[in-house]
Amino acid sequence: MSSQDLTGPLASDRDLDPAFPLHQGGKIEIRPTVRVRDRAGLSLAYTPGVARVCEAIAAEPELVYDYTWKGNTVLVVTDGTAVLGLGDIGPAAGLPVMEGKALLFKEFAGVDAVPICLDCKGVEEIIETCIRLAPAFGGINLEDISAPRCFEIEERLQDALDIPIFHDDQHGTAIVVLAALLNASAVTGRTLGDLRVVVSGAGAAGVAVTNMLLDAGIGDIAVADSVGMVSRDRADLTPVKQSLAERTNKANLSGSIYDALRGADVFIGLSAGKVPDEVVASMAPKAIVFALANPNPEVHPEVALRTAAVVATGRSDFPNQINNVLAFPGVFRGALDVRASRITPGMKRAAAQAIADAVGPDLAPDFIVPGVFDRRVPLAVAFAVAEAARADGVARK
Amino acid sequence: MSSQDLTGPLASDRDLDPAFPLHQGGKIEIRPTVRVRDRAGLSLAYTPGVARVCEAIAAEPELVYDYTWKGNTVLVVTDGTAVLGLGDIGPAAGLPVMEGKALLFKEFAGVDAVPICLDCKGVEEIIETCIRLAPAFGGINLEDISAPRCFEIEERLQDALDIPIFHDDQHGTAIVVLAALLNASAVTGRTLGDLRVVVSGAGAAGVAVTNMLLDAGIGDIAVADSVGMVSRDRADLTPVKQSLAERTNKANLSGSIYDALRGADVFIGLSAGKVPDEVVASMAPKAIVFALANPNPEVHPEVALRTAAVVATGRSDFPNQINNVLAFPGVFRGALDVRASRITPGMKRAAAQAIADAVGPDLAPDFIVPGVFDRRVPLAVAFAVAEAARADGVARK
Repeated sequence: MSSQDLTGPLASDRDLDPAFPLHQGGKIEIRPTVRVRDRAGLSLAYTPGVARVCEAIAAEPELVYDYTWKGNTVLVVTDGTAVLGLGDIGPAAGLPVMEGKALLFKEFAGVDAVPICLDCKGVEEIIETCIRLAPAFGGINLEDISAPRCFEIEERLQDALDIPIFHDDQHGTAIVVLAALLNASAVTGRTLGDLRVVVSGAGAAGVAVTNMLLDAGIGDIAVADSVGMVSRDRADLTPVKQSLAERTNKANLSGSIYDALRGADVFIGLSAGKVPDEVVASMAPKAIVFALANPNPEVHPEVALRTAAVVATGRSDFPNQINNVLAFPGVFRGALDVRASRITPGMKRAAAQAIADAVGPDLAPDFIVPGVFDRRVPLAVAFAVAEAARADGVARK
Repeated sequence: MSSQDLTGPLASDRDLDPAFPLHQGGKIEIRPTVRVRDRAGLSLAYTPGVARVCEAIAAEPELVYDYTWKGNTVLVVTDGTAVLGLGDIGPAAGLPVMEGKALLFKEFAGVDAVPICLDCKGVEEIIETCIRLAPAFGGINLEDISAPRCFEIEERLQDALDIPIFHDDQHGTAIVVLAALLNASAVTGRTLGDLRVVVSGAGAAGVAVTNMLLDAGIGDIAVADSVGMVSRDRADLTPVKQSLAERTNKANLSGSIYDALRGADVFIGLSAGKVPDEVVASMAPKAIVFALANPNPEVHPEVALRTAAVVATGRSDFPNQINNVLAFPGVFRGALDVRASRITPGMKRAAAQAIADAVGPDLAPDFIVPGVFDRRVPLAVAFAVAEAARADGVARK
C-alpha cells in the first residue's frame, strides 16, 4: 500500500460509501438452532442433558459429526498477509473479507464458516494453530495467505489432519479457470490437448492453475513471474518454481512473456501486469484471453476482443466473470456431505466440469461460465465433488 | 470416568433420550446479517467494496469494532480437560457444552460466541493459541479448563491482551455465589462481615469464590481440599493454595471440614463430597448452606432445611438455583458494550450486586436468587458491569 492508502478513508468519506454502512457491526452472527425457553429445555440443551451427549462422543468419537455443528462447519483462516490485492494489511484488517467468505459459504451452500484471523505469520505457527483448532471443524479453508508459505501450509496441514484443507486462492481460482477453459476450448473448436497456454503470475493462483491444467491434460503451458518466463535455465527459482520449470514450458522459452505469447492460444493473467493490445494481436487465431487482475484487467476486454475470440475477467461488469464463488461453496458442501478426509485432484476436476456443464446449451464466446447467482451451480458442484470423493476413496459417509 | 461410562449410550438408548435429537446437527449456526441477492450487493459485501473497509481498518485499527462482528463476539474456548463433572474427555467431546454456552450467550444477551475446542493441553500452547486467535474477538471466555492451569492461563492471557478474559468456571460461579450470599445474609439479618464461611473445594470455583468473598469483605473464610482444611501448617500446598492459606482461615483450622463446620455460618460446597446431616446441624443458628455439587448436592435440601435457614443448590428442581447463566451473558454484554479491556474485581462485584438486587421485594429464604429466565437479569448485570468498567477506567467507549 502507498502511504496515501494508509491514511484510510475519512469518516465523512465513509458516510458516502455504501460499503461502510453495509459492513457496520459485521456481516454474520451466531444463531441458536434450538430454542431454550424454560428449565426443561435448558436441562436438555445444557446441563445435565448435554453431559450425556458429551459422554457419547467421548466413547464414540465419530458421533461428534452427528451431535455438534462440526459436520457442517468450516474454519476460514487467514494471517492477513495477502488480503485481496492489498498485500500484508494484518489479521484484523483481513476480517471483513473472512466474514464475507463466511456469508457466501452460508448463502450459496448452507455451510457454516467461522472466520479466524491469526496474529502470527510463521509457517510452523500457522500449521500448529490450525491443528489445535481442528477438533470443532469439518474442514479448513485457507484464505489470503501469501505465497510461497501457502503451499507448504496447505500440504502439511492436509498430511496432519483427516478433514479437507483447501486454499481457495489456489484451488478455487484453478477450478473456475479450468471450467472456463473447457468451455472456451469447446466454443472455439479445440480441446485442452490442443492448447498452448501462457500464465502470468507464479503466486498461489498461478501455481495452482498451472498444476490443475497439467493434471487436466493441457497441450503446453508456460508460466511467467516478475522476472520473466520460468524456464529450466533460470538459476534464481524457488523450489516451487523449480518444480514448475521441470514440468512446464516444453520449448523452454525464456525472457519476456510478450515473446512467449506470440502464437499462444491462451493467456491467463493472474498478476497485476499489463498486456499491450499488439501482444494480444500476436497470439494465435481465435485466441483465448483470461485477464483476471482485479480491479484492472491486464487488457481491457473490448480491446482484447478486436483480435481474440473469447475474453474473461474477474469483474462483474463484463461478460465471463471468473469468480471463486462458483467453486468454494459447492466444493465444501460436497466434501462435508460425504465427510471427505481431503480434497483430491479428482474432486477439483469434477467441480470444474460441473461448473462448465452448468452453462448448458447457451454456451457462447461471451457465456463460458455460469452467473455467480445461478443457484444450480453450487448444487451441481457439491454433487460432483461428493461423487468424486467416493470414487477416490476419501468419503467416510 | 469409569470404564462403564466409556462405552457410552447405545444408539437405541440415544433414540430414547430427548437430549440426543435436540443436539442433532449441533445447536448453533452462522447466519448472514446482510443479504447478497445480486451483483451490486456482492460487489459491496465482497470484492471490490470490502477492500475499502479493509483499508480503513488497516489505517485505523479501532475501526475493526465498527465494521466487523468483533465488538459483539466472544471466543468460548476449552481444552476439554474439565468438562462439566466428566473430567478430561477431550476437546471434541467438550464441543456440545461449548455450543450450549454459545447458545446461552446469544439467547440471554445477544452476544455472538464462537466455540473452539483446542487439541492441546499445555499452558504455553493454550496461551499462545488464544493470543493468535484474538484479533477477531472482543473477549475470551475460558471454559472447562482444569485447575490449577486455568489460573495461570487466565492471568497471563489478560496480561497479554487488551480484551476481557473471563474463566467462567471461576468467576461466573463466584459472582452468583456472592449474589446469593448477599441475599442470604440479608434474609437472615446479617452482613458479609458477620459471616464465618467454610468452602469445600479448592479448584477453579473454590479459589475464585474465596477470593471474591475476601474482596467483598467476608468476616472469615476457610477452604477445604481433598486432604482437609487448607491451613498455614500444610506442607503439601500448591502455590495457589499456599496463597489461599495465607489469606484465609483466621483460626488456622486444620483437619476435617466437618470439624471446621461446627459453628460456621455458611457452607459452600463446590466439590463432589457429602455433608452428613449432623454436621449441618452443628453449624451456627440460621445457617446458610450452598450445596452446589451437581447433579447430587452435598446434602439434600430438605435434610439441610431441618436445621439451616437458607439452602441453595445447582439444580433447577429445587429453590435457589445457583447457575452461572445469571452472570456470564450480562457480564460480557456489559464489557463488550463499553469495549472494556479487562474484567475488574469491581465489575464482578457490580454483577453480583445486580443479580442480588434483581430479586427485589420478594426476597425470602427460598428466593435469594432470581430465576434463570428472568430476562431483566442480564440487562441489569450488563448495565452494572458497564458502569463499573467506566468507574474503574477500563472502558474504551
